[in-house]
Amino acid sequence: METIGENLRSQLRVVMVATRNPLNLGAAARAMANFGFSRLRVVNPYDVAFREARSAVGAAPLLQKAEQCATVAEAVADCRLVVGTTSVGHRELQHPVRRLEYGARLILRALAQGPVGLLFGSEKFGLSNEDLSHCHWLMRIPTVSQDLSMNLGQAVALCLYELARDPEAVNARPAKVTPAMAAETEQINAMLMEALIGSGYVNPLTAASTEEKVRRLVRRLRITARDAPVLMGMLRQILWKLGNAP
Amino acid sequence: METIGENLRSQLRVVMVATRNPLNLGAAARAMANFGFSRLRVVNPYDVAFREARSAVGAAPLLQKAEQCATVAEAVADCRLVVGTTSVGHRELQHPVRRLEYGARLILRALAQGPVGLLFGSEKFGLSNEDLSHCHWLMRIPTVSQDLSMNLGQAVALCLYELARDPEAVNARPAKVTPAMAAETEQINAMLMEALIGSGYVNPLTAASTEEKVRRLVRRLRITARDAPVLMGMLRQILWKLGNAP
Repeated sequence: METIGENLRSQLRVVMVATRNPLNLGAAARAMANFGFSRLRVVNPYDVAFREARSAVGAAPLLQKAEQCATVAEAVADCRLVVGTTSVGHRELQHPVRRLEYGARLILRALAQGPVGLLFGSEKFGLSNEDLSHCHWLMRIPTVSQDLSMNLGQAVALCLYELARDPEAVNARPAKVTPAMAAETEQINAMLMEALIGSGYVNPLTAASTEEKVRRLVRRLRITARDAPVLMGMLRQILWKLGNAP
Repeated sequence: METIGENLRSQLRVVMVATRNPLNLGAAARAMANFGFSRLRVVNPYDVAFREARSAVGAAPLLQKAEQCATVAEAVADCRLVVGTTSVGHRELQHPVRRLEYGARLILRALAQGPVGLLFGSEKFGLSNEDLSHCHWLMRIPTVSQDLSMNLGQAVALCLYELARDPEAVNARPAKVTPAMAAETEQINAMLMEALIGSGYVNPLTAASTEEKVRRLVRRLRITARDAPVLMGMLRQILWKLGNAP
């Protein structure tokens, strides 16, 4: 399964077509930075939006060096594959539509051969038929509801995440937690039993079987090396208060 | 590999803690609707933000029936697993941190056993140490840059997407395109050859080998049933203009 390296990331051109809201341009740029992409092209943005987004405090350097293009044709001129994004229920069915999970794999393969353009339409209308005629195929984010479009900034983030996603990471294990040594756990058992006897919880006649239950319960807690001394400190204080301190 | 059904989706509680920006509450609610989740809980939101988001034109019904909780403890009371979300470089390392790809698998398994709480902290500070003490473990969105946090609305969308993502869809094939019949392709070959001869492109001495080249080229174009008559129409017009119309 493909994963994406630095050189492949640099081949992707994120093309925002006719974006209206400066917050969405900012969100797109931020998602690109989050996932290591750098080439942003802006086609025919609402001028005020683009200027506002570019000059916003903390605007990503990425947004400041975004290339402004007059047409989609210009924005995708160097691309060997051009993919449009669409929401469910898009009117346009003259292109093959591929789900994000699968489409992203195809894009990864294409990035190895040359630049790929990934197009996002305006908040209100998506990509026009003219925009779509520049696309080889469309990629669809698999949402459940047919009639609720996605937020533009979120759509960009999802597409870039899927491209950057590591399929192997599904099986990753978290960093190992160091378990307490048996001697520490056993000391906790002993102190807990002492506290249970001292507090009258344990019936002296069944103390032996209670001790086994306590040991099994403490074992199930999988106490870590880090937590063992903390628990012992708590028990020591309780024992002292119970008048059973050694 | 697990995928998520309707009954599992209803077990997830998305918990937004101390959210400041009404747009982010709206974006979270929209992403939930996009991916079929419905239970939103809001802990200690900036009051104005919550009221604004709730009353926004087109606010999701989901946002309007969001439950407001005074504390994280209250918001996760019915959950059997509580997971905090975090960005890279989070100061807090006292919890196991799992990458989104893997963490989502664990959450899917847990959803089969009962409610799971997924916590998102405030835009500026993330989850506090007190919030984190309610979490069993943390889930990290695998961004590349250590020092750039994610946009809150995008973070919610990414987590829900990964939960709703269909691993099988990676291998899905797009709907089949119906290819043209050989007879149609052959007719296009013949018309193109005629145009090439009529226009003087073909040297009559090498016409036979050119015809083979043309046939191979046309075959590589993989013309669809839909496009064949369009291409024939174009060629017919060109032939007419060349004075070769039958």
